Amino acid sequence: MLNNEFNIGKEYKETFILTERIYKAFQECSGDMNPLHTDEIFAKNKGFHDKVMYGNILNAFISYFIGECLSIKDIIIHSQEISYKKAVYLNDRLRLEAIVGGIYESVNAVVFKFKFINQHNEMVAKGNVQIGILL
Amino acid sequence: MLNNEFNIGKEYKETFILTERIYKAFQECSGDMNPLHTDEIFAKNKGFHDKVMYGNILNAFISYFIGECLSIKDIIIHSQEISYKKAVYLNDRLRLEAIVGGIYESVNAVVFKFKFINQHNEMVAKGNVQIGILL
Repeated sequence: MLNNEFNIGKEYKETFILTERIYKAFQECSGDMNPLHTDEIFAKNKGFHDKVMYGNILNAFISYFIGECLSIKDIIIHSQEISYKKAVYLNDRLRLEAIVGGIYESVNAVVFKFKFINQHNEMVAKGNVQIGILL
Repeated sequence: MLNNEFNIGKEYKETFILTERIYKAFQECSGDMNPLHTDEIFAKNKGFHDKVMYGNILNAFISYFIGECLSIKDIIIHSQEISYKKAVYLNDRLRLEAIVGGIYESVNAVVFKFKFINQHNEMVAKGNVQIGILL
């Protein structure tokens, strides 16, 4: 069944713009008001260009990718990991590139490797996510 | 400096209630309307009690924990991983238990191991998160 839907090496691309609406919704969801993410002066004093977007907004984009962009909806995330490489800022345009890295028929699982690339062609994060197929 | 703020084995506990407001805010942030998370009938047909909460809401709670619950604010998440063990439902009361698992002075980094435990005393997720201290 998995091999009908997924193939090792199959690639996916999605683009996300990290809007003010998304930033505010994450803040509402998390309650995280750390000054790095809310205080431009604090962030600049730490060497960033502007307040830094929450890394976990990228994980929310992964949720969208898994929930909405695959050929089937009967899936659930088993596990995921992400490493942040560069700061992401408000209104950044992020290209998600994902590839099927593993298919495990015996446990109905698929692993994707992914990276996010910003509008300056810099990789800002990479990771992987394992999903299970709901029978 | 790290050893002033963190000690190996130091424990932290926080409680989160996964409210409708948090659920809706995550939906707004992610745009993920997968039926597992939005359609009670679909979720029940897949063997769950109710619609399943987005796993990445737990990552938003980790953002809060790191951003708001430590003794210093000058921090950024380097990387994180999480494994989901049991479904989480609306209004679940989740206890986050975190412990300092590693301190790396040479790179100004600290690793926390964490788990989330629900109101039935079931571990619903576990993982780890590495932070860096912003100098």
